[in-house]
Amino acid sequence: MSVTAAKGFTAAGIAAGIKESGNPDLALVVNNGPRVAAAGVFTSNRVKAAPVLWSEQVLKGGRVSAVVLNSGGANACTGPKGFQDTHATAEKVADTLGLNAAEVAVASTGLIGVLLPMDKLLPGVDTAAAQLSEHGGEKAAIAIKTTDTVHKTSVVQGDGWTVGGMAKGAGMLAPGLATMLVVLTTDADVDGETLDKALRAATRVTFDRVDSDGCMSTNDTVLLLASGAAEVTPEYEAFAEAVRKVCDDLGQQLVRDAEGAAKDIRIEVVNAATEDDAVEVGRSIARNNLLKCAIHGEDPNWGRVLSAIGTTSAAFEPDRLNVAINGVWVCKNGGVGEDRDKVDMRYREVHIVADLAAGAETATIWTNDLTADYVHENSAYSS
Amino acid sequence: MSVTAAKGFTAAGIAAGIKESGNPDLALVVNNGPRVAAAGVFTSNRVKAAPVLWSEQVLKGGRVSAVVLNSGGANACTGPKGFQDTHATAEKVADTLGLNAAEVAVASTGLIGVLLPMDKLLPGVDTAAAQLSEHGGEKAAIAIKTTDTVHKTSVVQGDGWTVGGMAKGAGMLAPGLATMLVVLTTDADVDGETLDKALRAATRVTFDRVDSDGCMSTNDTVLLLASGAAEVTPEYEAFAEAVRKVCDDLGQQLVRDAEGAAKDIRIEVVNAATEDDAVEVGRSIARNNLLKCAIHGEDPNWGRVLSAIGTTSAAFEPDRLNVAINGVWVCKNGGVGEDRDKVDMRYREVHIVADLAAGAETATIWTNDLTADYVHENSAYSS
Repeated sequence: MSVTAAKGFTAAGIAAGIKESGNPDLALVVNNGPRVAAAGVFTSNRVKAAPVLWSEQVLKGGRVSAVVLNSGGANACTGPKGFQDTHATAEKVADTLGLNAAEVAVASTGLIGVLLPMDKLLPGVDTAAAQLSEHGGEKAAIAIKTTDTVHKTSVVQGDGWTVGGMAKGAGMLAPGLATMLVVLTTDADVDGETLDKALRAATRVTFDRVDSDGCMSTNDTVLLLASGAAEVTPEYEAFAEAVRKVCDDLGQQLVRDAEGAAKDIRIEVVNAATEDDAVEVGRSIARNNLLKCAIHGEDPNWGRVLSAIGTTSAAFEPDRLNVAINGVWVCKNGGVGEDRDKVDMRYREVHIVADLAAGAETATIWTNDLTADYVHENSAYSS
Repeated sequence: MSVTAAKGFTAAGIAAGIKESGNPDLALVVNNGPRVAAAGVFTSNRVKAAPVLWSEQVLKGGRVSAVVLNSGGANACTGPKGFQDTHATAEKVADTLGLNAAEVAVASTGLIGVLLPMDKLLPGVDTAAAQLSEHGGEKAAIAIKTTDTVHKTSVVQGDGWTVGGMAKGAGMLAPGLATMLVVLTTDADVDGETLDKALRAATRVTFDRVDSDGCMSTNDTVLLLASGAAEVTPEYEAFAEAVRKVCDDLGQQLVRDAEGAAKDIRIEVVNAATEDDAVEVGRSIARNNLLKCAIHGEDPNWGRVLSAIGTTSAAFEPDRLNVAINGVWVCKNGGVGEDRDKVDMRYREVHIVADLAAGAETATIWTNDLTADYVHENSAYSS
C-alpha cells in the first residue's frame, strides 16, 4: 500500500520516457490534507543535486503538498540549468494540481551530470496527475526504481492512524550508495516540528546505519508527510516508534536488494564507551573491503575485523577485544578464540558481534559483502 | 641488488618451511657497519602485530644491526605467545650472529591470528645465516613475497654512496592493504636522527600516498639502515632526495602489483587551500568503490569523483570544481565539461586531476581499480 496506506494521500507512477528502457520513471505523491505538514532529511554530501537544493528550501517552510520524483537521471552536477529544470518541474506540478510551487518537493535519481529530458518529464506530470489515485502507492514505488530488483514499501498501523512509505535504492542515507529516495506518509494529525523530531530520531538509527558500500550520494532524500486525515493525534512515543519501524523495515529492504550483494551483514558493536564509538567502529568494519570479500568467500576472517577496529579512534584495548561471527567467538581477548571451523556461513544472513569491552553502549550497522557482481554492475555501464 | 647494493650489508633469503607451498619465506638483512644507525616507521593501526610492537622498541635505540623478516604468517592478534615468539626470533638471530637482540628488528607478513611455526622458523635462521652474502639482496626480496607476483627492489646511486631497498606488498603504508614491508639500506655515513628525518619526509609523500584499497595493515614496517661503509656523509638534501626516490620507485611497484588490479590510477589534486585538503580529497576519491568500478569499466564517470569530493571537509565550492580524466576536462565548474567520449581509457595508467579552485596546494594519491579479480583473490582463501 506504500504511500497511500495512510488516508489523505493519492499517488501515481507512470512511464514518461525519461528512461530509454520505457520502464516507469515518474511518480507523484499528493497530500490532500486537511493538514500538509512535512519534514525531511537530505544527503550530507556537499555536492548536492539540484532537487536536493530545491527541496531543502521547500522543507524549511514545513509544508509539502506534493512530491514529484523521477528515476532515469539524478539532475546532479548540472549547473544553473539543472536547478531551473527542478524549479520548472515543481511549477508544472503546482500548475497542474492547483498548488503552490513552494510546497512541491522534487527528488531525482539516476546518472550524475546529465540534464533531464524536460520535453518528456513535463508532459509526464500531466499523465501522472491524471492517474492520481488512493490506490496509486505501489505504482509510485515502482516508478522510482533504478537498479532496484524489487520495489520497497512498508506500512505500520497505529491506533486509528497509519504510517506508510516507499523507498528506492540499494544503500544508505548518509553516506549513500547510489541514491536512496524515501517518501513516508501518515494520516496522523501531527505538526511539522513533531514530524521532524520523529523522522530524525528514526533515520539516525535506521537509514543512517545502513552502509552498503561507503559511497555517499548527491541525491539522498527522506520525506515524511502528514495529512491529518485520520483526525487522531497519537502519543509522541507511539508515533515515533511507528516511523522508526517503517524506516527500519525499508532500510532492511535496501540492504537485501544491494547491488550485486550475496550476503547481508549485521554488525553489532557492543560494550562501547559511547554510542559514537560504537557507530565509528561499526562503519569501519562495514567499509573494510578485505573483510567484505572474506565474508563473500564464507571465510570467518576475524583478523580483518580487528584490523578495521584498529583504524578507529574508539576507546578499546587491543588485548581485550572479542569478536563473534554467527554466534562463534572466534576472537577472544584480541587473539584466537573458538574454532573458526564451527562458524556456519552458508546462509545469506551474517551476524558479526564486535565486543570493545570498554563500556555499555551499542550500535548496529548493516552492510553487504563485496562481490564480482557488484564490480560488474558498477563497471559495465554508467550509473 | 636490493638491500645489498649499499656497501656494508649482507642478506639471505631461504625457504624455512613456514609456507606450506615450500616457497622462500625467511629473509635476513645484516648491517656489518662500521655504523649501525637506523630509523623506522610503522603502521598507525592501533591493533599492531607482535613484530611491530617489538621493532618499535628496537628503533627507539636508533640502532639496528640485523632485520629478520618472514612471510607465511603475520604474527598479529596472537597474544603474549606471539610476542614471545617474536622475542625468541630476535634472540635466535642475535645468538647466531653474535649480536645484541635489542638491536635486531623483526617483521612478519601473512595471515592474522595464527601463531608462527617456531619449530621451522628458528632452524631457518641458522640456514639463512649460513647463506648471508653481499649478493643476497635479491633472494631476500623474494623471500618476503606473499601475494606479490614479482619481487620489488630499487637502487639510487649518490656521489660515492648508495641507497637501495626491497619491498613486499600490494598496497600502502598507512593505511595499508595486506602488509607492506620495506627495508632500505645505505652505506652513507649518516646518523639515526638524519635517517629518521629523511625517512619520514620520504614516506609522507610516497608510501603514505599509496591507497590501493583503503585497508590498514597490522604489520606495515619501513626500515632504513645505514652502515657508513662508504665513508661519505652526503649533503642532507641529496641524501633525502635519494631516499625519496627509492621510496617512490618501490611505492609505484606496489601499486603496479596490487591484488587483482587492472588499472593504476594517479589522482592529482590541484589548487587546494592546504596540502591536508589535497590529501583528504585524494584519499576520498581513491576509496570510492563506485568510481574504482567505473574506472575498471573504462567509464570516465566524473560524477563519482564529485560525489567523493563532496564527502570531505576540504575548502571548495561545488560549482567551481573541475575534473580531468586522461587529459580531458570532463567536468568544468561543477557541471558537464568536454565530451566524455574523447577520454581514452584503454591503457593501464589512468590520470585523474581534481581541481578544487581554492588555493595553490597539491597532492598526488595512487590507487587501483576495483575488479572481480580483487574480490576473488580476497574471498577464495584466507589471507
